Amino acid sequence: MREFILLSLKGKTSPDFNLEDLPGAGRIDLVCRTVSNILFISNALRRDTIVHISLNGPKSPPKMITFNGDELKGVEPDERSIATVIKTALKHSANLQQDEEKEVSPGVFISNKSFERLVKEKSKRCQLIYLHPKGEDIREAKFEENFLVIFGDYIGLPKNTEKLIERLGAKKISIGPIMLFASHCPVIIHNELDRRLQ
Amino acid sequence: MREFILLSLKGKTSPDFNLEDLPGAGRIDLVCRTVSNILFISNALRRDTIVHISLNGPKSPPKMITFNGDELKGVEPDERSIATVIKTALKHSANLQQDEEKEVSPGVFISNKSFERLVKEKSKRCQLIYLHPKGEDIREAKFEENFLVIFGDYIGLPKNTEKLIERLGAKKISIGPIMLFASHCPVIIHNELDRRLQ
Repeated sequence: MREFILLSLKGKTSPDFNLEDLPGAGRIDLVCRTVSNILFISNALRRDTIVHISLNGPKSPPKMITFNGDELKGVEPDERSIATVIKTALKHSANLQQDEEKEVSPGVFISNKSFERLVKEKSKRCQLIYLHPKGEDIREAKFEENFLVIFGDYIGLPKNTEKLIERLGAKKISIGPIMLFASHCPVIIHNELDRRLQ
Repeated sequence: MREFILLSLKGKTSPDFNLEDLPGAGRIDLVCRTVSNILFISNALRRDTIVHISLNGPKSPPKMITFNGDELKGVEPDERSIATVIKTALKHSANLQQDEEKEVSPGVFISNKSFERLVKEKSKRCQLIYLHPKGEDIREAKFEENFLVIFGDYIGLPKNTEKLIERLGAKKISIGPIMLFASHCPVIIHNELDRRLQ
């Protein structure tokens, strides 16, 4: 299973954001492009792929929204469609219990889980990878069958988060010499792995 | 110079489309994601890159919109911002003379030039490349200093367009075993070339 988690430090956690101003909602536009690039391919979805979005902006952080490519239905790849799904999920999150995860539409789940908690849980079951300019070249790097790629949005990963994931044994990988948008990185990772499966 | 041309057969050529429904405007959402992925990197623009968008939907085809990364100002990477630029450019296109190219904002140009004409003109000055599953692997392929990558949106390139560009000597390149969205392809092309410049 290919899993990704995007840490969005400013992405809104209440549904009162404006679909006409996604950058103003803590860069939800970037979150949406990332989800789109992770899950969608030409005329299909990547069924072997899951993406988790950790939102930590106002008004009720943290929120974790998970998109499971194997179950997803009725979601289109454009920013506004994905933002609408996020908004709907946040509307369903008002009365979530502490450990509850609610399925809000096929393949879309929301919970109050923190970024740190999800990463810790996953570290017991799969390889942790994070993107870093000084990491091992992706073309040389070994990927295990089940992995979780950890990355930040335009703010990147805070120092203490980097320390946490290093303690958990995460492997640093570099995807190239130029600092790309978060939304570009999964395209390159998928491409590398698709080539290996040829 | 890295140049790209996206053929959008259905993309609207009149400014009366709805920014709240970009997929309904002949998949302008996909056009915008492609422009974003071609020109933007983290905190910067690719100054050595130009992207041409050939729109051929209703009501006054063809329209060519060119974004020059070296001159572009005031454009953000989200779909709605880029769609707003396209809409503004189309508003300025009402009285274009046959061979006129109008600069509508810094680095954004519009004309009535057809896809075929631009590709023929460029073929005299730069290497033509088009994406094809049976092309040479991008990791082995030679790119000249000045090239133009030709690709289609969700509809792909019509057979007669493929024949035209083959007659003009275009080289077929494959970027991987899975058919991706048009918007993903430039990310992989840029990454390959960035690595070669290291």
